Amino acid sequence: MSLVRAHNISISLDGYATGEGQSLETPFGHAGMRLMEWAFPTATFQALGVHRERVEVDPASAPDDVFAARSWEGIGVEIMGANKFGPPGWQDDADWTGWWGEEPPFRTPTFVLTHQPRESIEKKGGTVFHFRDAPIQDVLVEVKEAAAGQDVRLGGGPSSIRDFLAAGLVDHLHVAVVPIILGRGVRLWKGLEALEDGYDVESTTTPSGVTHVTFDRKA
Amino acid sequence: MSLVRAHNISISLDGYATGEGQSLETPFGHAGMRLMEWAFPTATFQALGVHRERVEVDPASAPDDVFAARSWEGIGVEIMGANKFGPPGWQDDADWTGWWGEEPPFRTPTFVLTHQPRESIEKKGGTVFHFRDAPIQDVLVEVKEAAAGQDVRLGGGPSSIRDFLAAGLVDHLHVAVVPIILGRGVRLWKGLEALEDGYDVESTTTPSGVTHVTFDRKA
Repeated sequence: MSLVRAHNISISLDGYATGEGQSLETPFGHAGMRLMEWAFPTATFQALGVHRERVEVDPASAPDDVFAARSWEGIGVEIMGANKFGPPGWQDDADWTGWWGEEPPFRTPTFVLTHQPRESIEKKGGTVFHFRDAPIQDVLVEVKEAAAGQDVRLGGGPSSIRDFLAAGLVDHLHVAVVPIILGRGVRLWKGLEALEDGYDVESTTTPSGVTHVTFDRKA
Repeated sequence: MSLVRAHNISISLDGYATGEGQSLETPFGHAGMRLMEWAFPTATFQALGVHRERVEVDPASAPDDVFAARSWEGIGVEIMGANKFGPPGWQDDADWTGWWGEEPPFRTPTFVLTHQPRESIEKKGGTVFHFRDAPIQDVLVEVKEAAAGQDVRLGGGPSSIRDFLAAGLVDHLHVAVVPIILGRGVRLWKGLEALEDGYDVESTTTPSGVTHVTFDRKA
């Protein structure tokens, strides 16, 4: 059975998964790239080659890479919220095809949740974007079929992760807690009181200072 | 010079340092004792003997005890907010003398911030409660003098910790992040955007699943 998994969801100590003021130039708003800095020097993120800050792979990032790499193991399809596909208003730009250039890292069917769906977009390397405007439970039926026996990656952003968690649709969640106080933005945990009751929870701090918290749905 | 230190401030993953509905029976509101469960089995908390849930000292709690114990090292005085002295409305009860029985664990002068000060209360074991209604900066002058060269423990609750942090008065902060989602209550980090800029921050996860995050003011 396909599991629904979310990985590398980075949040601040005060629970914000992205800052305020998301735009084309600032995909994470006033947070800048601070929530993802732990991930950039990992072998996994360097191999993806999609982020804007190229750095050398740091051998000290190996413990972080254990978590970063899992996001790409056994995944047959990605499903993402509208805010992960583009800045606010991308739906009005017929030429917008996502943040990731000609060869996105997904390399699978990738379903984008939006109230203004458009024609599917095929990219190099196997990524095909599909656009759906339907309840997440319904989209998930189609998405799991597209996963062809592998798992579904729930890609974000935080609002869509929250919707899936609230609906009880998530089997595995990996959150990276970055020890900064963002103060404003989009809260990951809003409306999810006692989420831990349904999950086995584990925490691991790495030398980068990030704490990786994993939620695995109880059997 | 006396440092101002706050220790063992436990928060949920969503940043709440206490739950909603604080009362005499529920000092942490709907959070119950969940935020402090990591601390109960430590040698330090068992030696204090003040909490309601007596348990055996768990040898596996030794890494947590490293943090728990620091709260009691080199402290000459405690300062606490009104909510740490009693449930809402304690000021109207002339017989209320705090949550901690006849021999409180503080064993030093202990200053309570309240808009309704009363006569000082002397308890067994060296704890003397003083009540002050003045700006925290002013109270801190008197408190540091009372510390007689030792450090000041900022005891909580979260609202008073937040006030001291916002005023730049805290030298050391130890927070224990408990991997639960409380959903509502008092937020520790509210109004403290970019607090980390003034501090060196370190994180450590222990076998209990708690992540200890320390903030040390930059030199």
